[in-house]
Amino acid sequence: MSESTVLFHFAFQPASRAARLALGEARIEWTDTPVRPWEDDCPVNDFNPSGLPPVVQTTDRGRPLTLCELPAVLGWIEDQQKAPLLLSADPAERAEARRLTGWFERRFTDEVDAVLLHERMEKPLLKLGPPEARALRHGRDALKSHLAMLEDLVAARDWLAGRRLSQADLIAAAHLSVLDYFGEIQWANWPSLKTWYSKLKSRPCFRPLLADRFVGVPPSAWYADLDF
Amino acid sequence: MSESTVLFHFAFQPASRAARLALGEARIEWTDTPVRPWEDDCPVNDFNPSGLPPVVQTTDRGRPLTLCELPAVLGWIEDQQKAPLLLSADPAERAEARRLTGWFERRFTDEVDAVLLHERMEKPLLKLGPPEARALRHGRDALKSHLAMLEDLVAARDWLAGRRLSQADLIAAAHLSVLDYFGEIQWANWPSLKTWYSKLKSRPCFRPLLADRFVGVPPSAWYADLDF
Repeated sequence: MSESTVLFHFAFQPASRAARLALGEARIEWTDTPVRPWEDDCPVNDFNPSGLPPVVQTTDRGRPLTLCELPAVLGWIEDQQKAPLLLSADPAERAEARRLTGWFERRFTDEVDAVLLHERMEKPLLKLGPPEARALRHGRDALKSHLAMLEDLVAARDWLAGRRLSQADLIAAAHLSVLDYFGEIQWANWPSLKTWYSKLKSRPCFRPLLADRFVGVPPSAWYADLDF
Repeated sequence: MSESTVLFHFAFQPASRAARLALGEARIEWTDTPVRPWEDDCPVNDFNPSGLPPVVQTTDRGRPLTLCELPAVLGWIEDQQKAPLLLSADPAERAEARRLTGWFERRFTDEVDAVLLHERMEKPLLKLGPPEARALRHGRDALKSHLAMLEDLVAARDWLAGRRLSQADLIAAAHLSVLDYFGEIQWANWPSLKTWYSKLKSRPCFRPLLADRFVGVPPSAWYADLDF
C-alpha cells in the first residue's frame, strides 16, 4: 500500500497540513506532490470537483482509490486501523473530537483563516496588494477569542478532545502552525496552549511542516524551534 | 438507550433534518425538542459552544453522552452499528460519501443556503424585510449549478456516493427538502434527481419532515406529495 500512496497538497493550506500530520501519525509512507490550487492547470482539478487539496491517491485491497479532501483522508486512515488512532475509543472523546473538527472546518476557517491568511498569505501569492490594517485587526481579534477558547480546553485536558491525542489536535495544530509561520501567535499569552503545541511540535509527524518555506516570507523566529 | 435519547433541532435547518433522517434510518427512537437557535435563551447554548443544533443527549454504555452537531451525531450512530449503515463498506464509496458530506457542509451551505435560505427563511423569521431580487437570482443560479452536478451523479449511480444509500444522500436530501418546501426546486428539470428524491421521500425516516410547517409560509404544492 504505502509505496503507491501520493499526496497532492499545498504546504500552507491548513487542511493539507492536517492530512500530512494524520498520514504521519499513521506511519503511512507517501510521495509528496505539492500543488498550487489557485492555478488553472492544478492537477487536483482532474480528481476533485472542488479543485481543492488535499487529495490522496492510493490503493486499497489492490484497487486504486482516490481520497478527495481532508474528511475522506482522515476517514480512510481510521478505517485502516486495528485500534482507534485519530479518534479515541471513548464515545465522549469521539464526539468532542468530531465537534472540534467541525468547529475548525467552519468557524475557525471563516473567522480567522479567511481574514488573516487572506491578508498575509493569499494577497502576496495572488499579487493582490498589501494587507489592510482593518482586516488584520479583525482577524487578530477573532484569532484571540479562538485561542482563549483553546487555552481553556487544554488547561483542563491532556489533549483538545480529552485524554488522548485525536484528529482535533492535528487539525488545530495544522491551522495554528500556518498562523505561527506568519508570526500571528504570541505564545507567551497562552501558556497551556503553548505546552500543548510544543508536545505536538516534537512529534515526528510535525518535522516536515517545520521545514516548509513560503517564497518571499521568512518564518517567524520561533516557527521551527522546538524550544520556543 | 433509545428511550433516553433527546434531539434538540430546528425543523428547517438542513443539519437538523439530516440528524433526524440518520436517527430514523438507524431506527433509534428519540424525543424531539424543537429549538429556535437565533434566540438568546436557546437551550443548545448550554451544551454546544457554537449554539447550533442539532444536539443529541443520550446514554452510551450507561454514561450520559452529548453529541454536538451533525458530524458527532452521524459518527456516533455509525459507531453503534454492527455493519456499515451511513457509509458503504466499499472504500471508494466511503471516500465519495465523505467528499460529498464536505461539499454540502461548505460549498452548498455557502453558495446556496446562505443566500436562498437567508432570503426565504431567515428574513421572515428575524423580521429583516422582504427578499432581495438580486440575492434570490444569485442563489437560484448557484442552486441550478449544484442541481446539475447532483443530476449527473445520480444519472450514473443508484445513490449519490455509489450503489448504497449513505449519509451523503441523507444530507443532500435534508438540504434539498428545505429548499423544496419554499418551492425553489423545479423537479421536472432534473429527472434522475427527481427519481432519487422520490426514493428518499418514500422512506419511513422522511415522513416526519413532510409534516413540518413553517409559520406564515405554506409548503410548495408538491412538498409532502410522494407522487410529485
